[in-house]
Amino acid sequence: MKAVRLHQYEDQPRLDEVPDPVISSPLDVIVKIGGAGVCRTDLHIIEGQWQAKTGVGLPYVQGHENAGWVTEVGSAVTSVAPGDPVILHPLVTCGLCAACRRGDDVHCAASAFPGIDSDGGFAEYLRTNARAVVPLDADLAPAEVAALADAGLTAYHAAKKAARTLAPGAKAVVIGAGGLGHIGIQVLRALTPAELIVVDRSAQALKLAETLGAHHTVVADGSQADQVAELTAGQGAEAVLDFVGEGGALEDGVRMLRRAGDYYVIGYGGTLSVPTIDIISTEINFIGNLVGSYTDLVELMDLAARGLVTLHTVTYPLDDFGRALDDLNQGRVRGRAVLVP
Amino acid sequence: MKAVRLHQYEDQPRLDEVPDPVISSPLDVIVKIGGAGVCRTDLHIIEGQWQAKTGVGLPYVQGHENAGWVTEVGSAVTSVAPGDPVILHPLVTCGLCAACRRGDDVHCAASAFPGIDSDGGFAEYLRTNARAVVPLDADLAPAEVAALADAGLTAYHAAKKAARTLAPGAKAVVIGAGGLGHIGIQVLRALTPAELIVVDRSAQALKLAETLGAHHTVVADGSQADQVAELTAGQGAEAVLDFVGEGGALEDGVRMLRRAGDYYVIGYGGTLSVPTIDIISTEINFIGNLVGSYTDLVELMDLAARGLVTLHTVTYPLDDFGRALDDLNQGRVRGRAVLVP
Amino acid sequence: MKAVRLHQYEDQPRLDEVPDPVISSPLDVIVKIGGAGVCRTDLHIIEGQWQAKTGVGLPYVQGHENAGWVTEVGSAVTSVAPGDPVILHPLVTCGLCAACRRGDDVHCAASAFPGIDSDGGFAEYLRTNARAVVPLDADLAPAEVAALADAGLTAYHAAKKAARTLAPGAKAVVIGAGGLGHIGIQVLRALTPAELIVVDRSAQALKLAETLGAHHTVVADGSQADQVAELTAGQGAEAVLDFVGEGGALEDGVRMLRRAGDYYVIGYGGTLSVPTIDIISTEINFIGNLVGSYTDLVELMDLAARGLVTLHTVTYPLDDFGRALDDLNQGRVRGRAVLVP
Amino acid sequence: MKAVRLHQYEDQPRLDEVPDPVISSPLDVIVKIGGAGVCRTDLHIIEGQWQAKTGVGLPYVQGHENAGWVTEVGSAVTSVAPGDPVILHPLVTCGLCAACRRGDDVHCAASAFPGIDSDGGFAEYLRTNARAVVPLDADLAPAEVAALADAGLTAYHAAKKAARTLAPGAKAVVIGAGGLGHIGIQVLRALTPAELIVVDRSAQALKLAETLGAHHTVVADGSQADQVAELTAGQGAEAVLDFVGEGGALEDGVRMLRRAGDYYVIGYGGTLSVPTIDIISTEINFIGNLVGSYTDLVELMDLAARGLVTLHTVTYPLDDFGRALDDLNQGRVRGRAVLVP
Repeated sequence: MKAVRLHQYEDQPRLDEVPDPVISSPLDVIVKIGGAGVCRTDLHIIEGQWQAKTGVGLPYVQGHENAGWVTEVGSAVTSVAPGDPVILHPLVTCGLCAACRRGDDVHCAASAFPGIDSDGGFAEYLRTNARAVVPLDADLAPAEVAALADAGLTAYHAAKKAARTLAPGAKAVVIGAGGLGHIGIQVLRALTPAELIVVDRSAQALKLAETLGAHHTVVADGSQADQVAELTAGQGAEAVLDFVGEGGALEDGVRMLRRAGDYYVIGYGGTLSVPTIDIISTEINFIGNLVGSYTDLVELMDLAARGLVTLHTVTYPLDDFGRALDDLNQGRVRGRAVLVP
Repeated sequence: MKAVRLHQYEDQPRLDEVPDPVISSPLDVIVKIGGAGVCRTDLHIIEGQWQAKTGVGLPYVQGHENAGWVTEVGSAVTSVAPGDPVILHPLVTCGLCAACRRGDDVHCAASAFPGIDSDGGFAEYLRTNARAVVPLDADLAPAEVAALADAGLTAYHAAKKAARTLAPGAKAVVIGAGGLGHIGIQVLRALTPAELIVVDRSAQALKLAETLGAHHTVVADGSQADQVAELTAGQGAEAVLDFVGEGGALEDGVRMLRRAGDYYVIGYGGTLSVPTIDIISTEINFIGNLVGSYTDLVELMDLAARGLVTLHTVTYPLDDFGRALDDLNQGRVRGRAVLVP
Repeated sequence: MKAVRLHQYEDQPRLDEVPDPVISSPLDVIVKIGGAGVCRTDLHIIEGQWQAKTGVGLPYVQGHENAGWVTEVGSAVTSVAPGDPVILHPLVTCGLCAACRRGDDVHCAASAFPGIDSDGGFAEYLRTNARAVVPLDADLAPAEVAALADAGLTAYHAAKKAARTLAPGAKAVVIGAGGLGHIGIQVLRALTPAELIVVDRSAQALKLAETLGAHHTVVADGSQADQVAELTAGQGAEAVLDFVGEGGALEDGVRMLRRAGDYYVIGYGGTLSVPTIDIISTEINFIGNLVGSYTDLVELMDLAARGLVTLHTVTYPLDDFGRALDDLNQGRVRGRAVLVP
Repeated sequence: MKAVRLHQYEDQPRLDEVPDPVISSPLDVIVKIGGAGVCRTDLHIIEGQWQAKTGVGLPYVQGHENAGWVTEVGSAVTSVAPGDPVILHPLVTCGLCAACRRGDDVHCAASAFPGIDSDGGFAEYLRTNARAVVPLDADLAPAEVAALADAGLTAYHAAKKAARTLAPGAKAVVIGAGGLGHIGIQVLRALTPAELIVVDRSAQALKLAETLGAHHTVVADGSQADQVAELTAGQGAEAVLDFVGEGGALEDGVRMLRRAGDYYVIGYGGTLSVPTIDIISTEINFIGNLVGSYTDLVELMDLAARGLVTLHTVTYPLDDFGRALDDLNQGRVRGRAVLVP
């Protein structure tokens, strides 16, 4: 089959002809890729930023946001059959450790992450396991939802946590209306009655946020914390969902928080630095967020099937991966780039 | 191997020589039985009460509370190895349905129940799967804890739910200090600061309850609801855990409940019958309880290993199954009867 | 002032000239009535059904769903001032008992219920206390929202509880799309992403339910449980909100419940009667629901101010109370009748 | 009456003769002081550290951990009567703001803090309000429990939050077994089945921790994070309760945390500084903790009345305040110093 493989860090991946993946364990599932999201993390991988973390052997196939159709299943797989359209949870989990048994499979003690630490979906076929496949509604084309598998799932996971405490009258600030943030806005609208205040540097991103249901938008021009104070009667918001996590977003974000409020750390890059006296005197919380669970992905697909979460995608033929990476790198992609074999 | 099998309803089971169970699926696990609890349900099975519900083919091996040592594992099993001491969750679950993925494996869409609807543990060996085996602490002998696998797990599950809402100052009533109830008392003591009021007809059971940590005991002599009223300043208890569920326990139990209180239905047999006006005007809740999850059993074994939950057991050689069933039927068993092959 | 007072049970109330209420305690608040909902309970009061329960002395002023404007406040009142538009929580609570201190003021140990056990709002003025007044958004006219004070608040309270467990993909059944039910539908739409299945005998009520956002409607023609089974792939719904509570609704409703599902008892009149074996084997719960808390009413008013919950009302001059009661009794009121002094 | 008042920052307070406090509002309560805890904050106040924060006018009476007997109540007080023994919640709250109505009175929009921003309990009498008085069990002497009113309540509040997620098998690390920490240990033992690992620099403090129920103690000699790793099979603890909050405790503490674990910030002084990549990749949370609510104090008094939480106290006559402050400053107080008028 054809596969886009990284051979050397800081070098463009190459289109190779490689053997098709095969079933090697009873719970394995082979998926014909219908779409594979291209994400900023893919650029970082090529730059070598993940080299030490994953130790993945080169060459290997990138692509960690995948959807497609099942073509073959292992002997112990009962939940899907060849032909089924599926989206793939990014993690291949063990199902037997304490975390998996609680339904908290994101913290599986023995998971693999195709596209990051093993062969991924920039290819015609991918091997995953039965615990990673979420059947898709007939109305959802794999290429249209693939990019929800990781970025969207992370946004969903954080927004769902926030939703638990957002009653009518509550305000939630979304910092960053980009790839993850604009999914977060849609999820918050679907799951909560909270008033949404969206903060971004880009007027265009804020315009999109409005069409997705933001109640207020705030240009991040340096006065954003003051603007949020004004929109919240000087009290701040019950929740701040920070999809940026660097470059001053954190300092501003903490100032936007109400007493006893929750700060959701989703974006990353910067350092959270807060005097403990400020944490205890206002009794605020900082909540870490990783990607969502399998159940979260099932729920997100329900929202997608009902049109409550939509994603703008630009598709590229698999052969055109170079152009996709380039467009992403140059900021020329509106929404999410998806490779279609 | 030797196995005690039921050949005909309303007839005593027989000790047969049968083939050893074999691995037939990648997640299968073969366990050498170290102890198998004998339970009132076993008598009901022989009487034919479960015939229509399970449709199990005869002859089959009874025994649904099992612990022992792993002897062989299927090709996909990574969590236990031959020689490991284990207790078995009563259900063999699929791991792939929505309930299993949430950690709520009790509501698995495709589970089996060895000893009830397939061959169980009144035998030298039992086949189960990797999702049912909980590794045992080295200090816990399988025969000593086997009877916690079903009865104990049910009591744990209900007590854990109740613990979530029992703050210091709260009162909890335990109706029935028998097989399940006396486990429930120990779990409540370990998990909550609530004051425990234990109600039973038997003075002996109440004496045991006291040694296990009951703060107050009430003889069920007809005045029990009044006595509970007195012990709760006329307010009733925040929680009632009903391990009886028949014969007047329900009517009395509901009278023992405080406004906005929770009634845990655990024992069964009777019918819950309450005017809706009484439910809404006091805003009380009725909470159903089935056996606990795999995670619950892991937690219960932690309590057992630390001596916080103990069980009085009487062991019988496997060949003596007839005497065990007879003793149980005649009320001659103190604590729980366990067959040891 | 003018007030409609009940002088004798089973007799029409009369319009009397009575002294204006006066401040008698530091937390008292006098409210000029802008609207007072007329409710089926008012008919039952006249019929004497509440006589034994409340022991209220006759004559007294009915009217327990009230909104208006503050005219005078006691010396300890800091939260509202004369001129403020307000809606009144139905209970006048103490603020000092354990329940009040937890925010659970519905279970206040020493509350009064104007219109039920003391003088209510079928009058020009009403005395309540500072703990019962919820300031109204400038866009909300008291007469338009008065009927949300009790009926709407009960529906809100139950729907909010249900919302906690309703994730995307979950189904919720609403039994009864009448006065309370049609508020419940709107609240569920605002608070949850669940698919709503609304069951009612009346095609007209179902049509309204659809315009309010019901995803499916089911005519209660005897086949309703089967229809719900079909709409839920034979699994039943995660939640059933029963706004009827009598006349077969309960029996049907329990059949509509999924394993581990929650049954919200809101309407009343009948008796909940379920074998305990059915409660434990499916692990279902029955949740009682009384009126909501002060905080619930604040939240409901937020939804109303944002147009997410609306109420169809028919206003009558206070003098026309007889016609209002008559119309209600004859089933001639669409939506809710409101007396305006 | 006699009262110890601060006249000038950085100067010793003086024993003055001042007028007795009087009822000035309907919810006021006058309490004859039975004991007033002397706390490190009192030293900080004298040093002027709180001057800017509170702006309290001098001279004023210090003392913010108070218990005693009610001597007089305002006209609207129904919950206590003269002669009742009481402990005082540190905050005098309004009861009418949104936070108070939710039971979250710590975040009251209009609270006073006697001893900090108004006259406190280093005196014969103190004025507070009905919302601050918690009736004491007859077995509890005011002087013995006074110091639980603020320090103990803070420890209780944090430990109760932590208890919600600590199931059997979970590990909790307590950093700092001093004034607050040793209460925290007792509360955790009463509320959870978790294994407790206590970390402190002082061998004596760790010895006390053991007698209070710590399962493991770790000397903070630089290797504490490694020791905790060893005690948790390299996984870290589900919860870390940091009663120190400065001087390296934070950096160490974060290293002791398990994936998805919760870090409770209670002590303060230092700065929490964590790269966001570490927060999201392990999905950890930081939970701020202020003093507990009124309900929390009621619950803590239940534990105290049942002997589940005890406090070592050293009493000084009110006139001896200078010696008490001096002893505290010199580290000569074992347990808590309490002034008794």
